Amino acid sequence: MVRRRGARENRREEILLAALDVFAQRGYTGASIASIAERVGLSQQGVLHYFPSKDRLLAEVLRLRDERNLDVLVLPGEGGAITLETVAGLVEYNAQRPGIVQSFTVLSAESVIEDHPARNFFKERYGTSRAWMAEVIRAELGDELPAGLTPEQAAPLMFAVMDGLQLQWLLAPDEIDMPGLFRAFLSLLKGAPRPS
Amino acid sequence: MVRRRGARENRREEILLAALDVFAQRGYTGASIASIAERVGLSQQGVLHYFPSKDRLLAEVLRLRDERNLDVLVLPGEGGAITLETVAGLVEYNAQRPGIVQSFTVLSAESVIEDHPARNFFKERYGTSRAWMAEVIRAELGDELPAGLTPEQAAPLMFAVMDGLQLQWLLAPDEIDMPGLFRAFLSLLKGAPRPS
Repeated sequence: MVRRRGARENRREEILLAALDVFAQRGYTGASIASIAERVGLSQQGVLHYFPSKDRLLAEVLRLRDERNLDVLVLPGEGGAITLETVAGLVEYNAQRPGIVQSFTVLSAESVIEDHPARNFFKERYGTSRAWMAEVIRAELGDELPAGLTPEQAAPLMFAVMDGLQLQWLLAPDEIDMPGLFRAFLSLLKGAPRPS
Repeated sequence: MVRRRGARENRREEILLAALDVFAQRGYTGASIASIAERVGLSQQGVLHYFPSKDRLLAEVLRLRDERNLDVLVLPGEGGAITLETVAGLVEYNAQRPGIVQSFTVLSAESVIEDHPARNFFKERYGTSRAWMAEVIRAELGDELPAGLTPEQAAPLMFAVMDGLQLQWLLAPDEIDMPGLFRAFLSLLKGAPRPS
């Protein structure tokens, strides 16, 4: 029984990773259960046995992705706390896995389409992310940032910079130093003095 | 003859606007010539008479979109020069046309997929945009920005902020003040002093 359950879990994860790959390459709209099934050597029915619909599969892929990212965010911090340094570390980690970044870029952008199955996921994810990021910023940089910005203004800008740099980096990896530019943005927020 | 040509041009533009709408709602992958044709009361063959392929239609839609944006960028400047203020004006203009912004967000993100027909368009567009934006920044703010940033670092950050804010704003228009946040980012670049 225990071994069977393990095998089932492994197969689930194998399907999720294949789905992530197919979503990354074709987006949600362009992806088919058939192409995901083919990658793991199952029939469509076989995949649907594990995940009853393409929507469900997408939801689980997004959850898996967030779980793995959170590992990175939490691991380097002391006592699991997220800091601006761990966020910069995540950007560095992302620069080593273009496939995952691509899936996120395509799916999050697609999700702005009305009735897209991931729309609520991304809307809520950004909402909660902005809230915790504002607290991370406040804890490190205080209530008032350079140019009179508040942590609540800096948080959406932080995610905008992360997302926008990913897009430019995916298109031109040789021209865009994603981690370096992200750190440059952080230094603007920190108000590091100009070298004179 | 002249009237016929006028009618043909009008019909072309009508098809392009319908295509923009369909691409905005379904992305390039999910859009079909049939659904575009339906909106303008033509057969698929009718649409293909004006644009020989879906790729070609996409290319023309992107060109149209850029032409219209450039009008906005150039109009308010003196002698047609682009300034940081006209860029902020473009962000304000975008906040009034979510449909156009949505089409750009979905298509640009989709374009990171290998072999996507718009990949080169977006890669080149970002490359040239970063170059002129660096010059606009240098002309107004000089060679050295706060925290020692260069105009060449600030330019990709500027487009990242524009693109990333669009994504968050499309998902949550009531929570994200896109023009206000963009101006907050500009004030970081300008190094406006903290109010004490």
